[in-house]
Amino acid sequence: MPGISSKGLELPSSPIRKLVPFAEAAKKRGTKVFHLNIGQPDIHSPQEVLNAIRGFNMEVIEYSHSAGFESYRRKLAGYYQNLGIEVDHEQVMVTTGGSEALMFAMMCTLNEGDEVIIPEPFYANYISFAKAAGANIVPVTARIEDGFALPPISDFEKLITPKTKAILICNPSNPTGYLYSKEELERLRDIVLKHDLWLFSDEVYREFVYDGHVHTSVMNLEGLDQHAVVVDSVSKRYSLCGVRIGCVVSKNRELMQTLLKLGQARLSPPTLGQIAGEAAMDTPASYFEEVNREYVKRRNFVTEALSKIPGVVCPVPGGAFYATIKLPVQDSDDFCQWLLSDFSYEGSTVMLAPASGFYATPGLGKQEARIAYVLKIEDLQQAVKCLEEALKVYPGRLVAEESTVTNQHSA
Amino acid sequence: MPGISSKGLELPSSPIRKLVPFAEAAKKRGTKVFHLNIGQPDIHSPQEVLNAIRGFNMEVIEYSHSAGFESYRRKLAGYYQNLGIEVDHEQVMVTTGGSEALMFAMMCTLNEGDEVIIPEPFYANYISFAKAAGANIVPVTARIEDGFALPPISDFEKLITPKTKAILICNPSNPTGYLYSKEELERLRDIVLKHDLWLFSDEVYREFVYDGHVHTSVMNLEGLDQHAVVVDSVSKRYSLCGVRIGCVVSKNRELMQTLLKLGQARLSPPTLGQIAGEAAMDTPASYFEEVNREYVKRRNFVTEALSKIPGVVCPVPGGAFYATIKLPVQDSDDFCQWLLSDFSYEGSTVMLAPASGFYATPGLGKQEARIAYVLKIEDLQQAVKCLEEALKVYPGRLVAEESTVTNQHSA
Repeated sequence: MPGISSKGLELPSSPIRKLVPFAEAAKKRGTKVFHLNIGQPDIHSPQEVLNAIRGFNMEVIEYSHSAGFESYRRKLAGYYQNLGIEVDHEQVMVTTGGSEALMFAMMCTLNEGDEVIIPEPFYANYISFAKAAGANIVPVTARIEDGFALPPISDFEKLITPKTKAILICNPSNPTGYLYSKEELERLRDIVLKHDLWLFSDEVYREFVYDGHVHTSVMNLEGLDQHAVVVDSVSKRYSLCGVRIGCVVSKNRELMQTLLKLGQARLSPPTLGQIAGEAAMDTPASYFEEVNREYVKRRNFVTEALSKIPGVVCPVPGGAFYATIKLPVQDSDDFCQWLLSDFSYEGSTVMLAPASGFYATPGLGKQEARIAYVLKIEDLQQAVKCLEEALKVYPGRLVAEESTVTNQHSA
Repeated sequence: MPGISSKGLELPSSPIRKLVPFAEAAKKRGTKVFHLNIGQPDIHSPQEVLNAIRGFNMEVIEYSHSAGFESYRRKLAGYYQNLGIEVDHEQVMVTTGGSEALMFAMMCTLNEGDEVIIPEPFYANYISFAKAAGANIVPVTARIEDGFALPPISDFEKLITPKTKAILICNPSNPTGYLYSKEELERLRDIVLKHDLWLFSDEVYREFVYDGHVHTSVMNLEGLDQHAVVVDSVSKRYSLCGVRIGCVVSKNRELMQTLLKLGQARLSPPTLGQIAGEAAMDTPASYFEEVNREYVKRRNFVTEALSKIPGVVCPVPGGAFYATIKLPVQDSDDFCQWLLSDFSYEGSTVMLAPASGFYATPGLGKQEARIAYVLKIEDLQQAVKCLEEALKVYPGRLVAEESTVTNQHSA
């Protein structure tokens, strides 16, 4: 039998989806499962988008330009200009989701064996994108006790080798919800310039920023024109996960030209998705205000309610719709599986994403789990209640311990 | 400035699109350009698909399963079963176009420096997909004098090294239109089994088969269950290039599991595209009959008309909607550019794809060009007339030469 490639063998299974069979079995038994494990928002897609899809009036669904429709790229450039990012449409390439954006950016910049430093916990799929590019991820650990703030730059410095080619951040972060401050980004800029590295910034949650905080993009920083690469997506912004439309933004001309070669090879991003993405640009500000109000309400409820459960540590994140929490259990992989296979409370249970899959350092995150507060308040109430009851009876429960955490909203 | 990766630097620019600026300039001068250079069919998409898109009735455009909607995969499995390919829905993974299908299949099977043997001329983007996987393409030359039939197996044998991991064919072929016979495929099977290689088969033009020929898939061959991998797409079949929906089909369980890991990393194929793809399964047979009648008419017209031009050699292909032809010029890259920059006949000119980009062996295909007969007969008539007139006045024209070719329809 012919063999699988080394990178194929090394690809991790999705830590987010590996519990799915247990959830399916629970549902078959008649147990209601509250999904706090995935980032599929329940927020409705903008009406402008649905109208555009239903109004599709061409007779042939054709390829677009490999970099995406020019009209859409021009609108995207305008959107970035409104954020103080001075780019034109040739500095934006439309991709098949943020996933393709990051995978292509890594392929265009990283050689076999090169290293990318990423603060952990991080979005687990970064490992697969790096593997696909032949590169390795080197984690620098952020701590729950610090609310998952940027680790000290001295920790990054210790990890830099001749193979280090890039630093990757997610801002605000999946899975922690942490929003990097301008000062933190400036510290990253300095080390990036010092070592001549790429700075990839996944900013797909840019609009989800709370408590009056302001999002700073790496493209807003002076001096990073040749180094900064933004990965973006309409998936979360407009609750359009299924259209698979994202983009890469960079002022580095050589990178954009190289990306276009890969883009031409795969012909074009999805045409219907681009129609959706372009229509979404007309979404009124009131949509975001409403969505943000809803997420703040959910975040406040979830973080307060979880913090009241003995032994649970829950930093209050400044953005996105995730929180990484610490549970009074020895092994959250076991606990999350047990929740689905052995537990129910009033006919319901809850599904969380064990955090071990978000850490690259073996053994870290064993007591942590990621929650996505993408459900209605009523459902969140029941989900938290399930978790509380579960922790009362879970055989692997640890004795309560004291913890201090830095909450971002009070920082 | 941080650097571009080696594979990024080595990615070829698209040979199909590199003449685009010259075409745009011609259009600005008021010259009408007949596009025989790209495989974007003018055939309308099936009404069933357009209705499904316009009838989209969900309020959130969500992710699908990473392998694609199960309902769609079950229908695809049924489609393959009707072709005598005994697969179930777990042996089909939906991808973002045939491009992602092949790129992922290569990533899952090829290591850095591994080699894939491909009969040339071949679809130019295979080079980029192989590069993205870190692998190298080793060409085995098919000759226009043989109508681009499969090269002798002894030619393959000479190229096999310990690094050879796969053979890739496109059947029927882009850019030649050649349809491999069952006997040719059986010869490939034998060498694949002898050396324990993967056999990738790009079958996206499967339905475009003429003159009573029958398409044989590598999945129809006995003994190849662990080796055969089909790459497929709805782009050409239903004139749905822009939906970006394809799939990988294989009975190799380990490969499908590895592909799914990559699939999970990129979350899901486009949801709207899958709705289109699934609706397309209900396209009545009459649609294909009509489309095939149209293509046969076009092929017959184009090949007959081109063959009458002194010095032009045009094999009659058995499938797809391409032909690779030989022109009485020294360098078809120069000629194709000249057609756009220096020539017009009654206000029109024609755009062809120079064949040099479809060969991996340097220097081959310099006199050849690919045509895609994706225009109406009336337009094809004018396009061929342009080419005829152009060859009368082109300064780099060669003296007419005699040639014999094997036409597939008479084989």
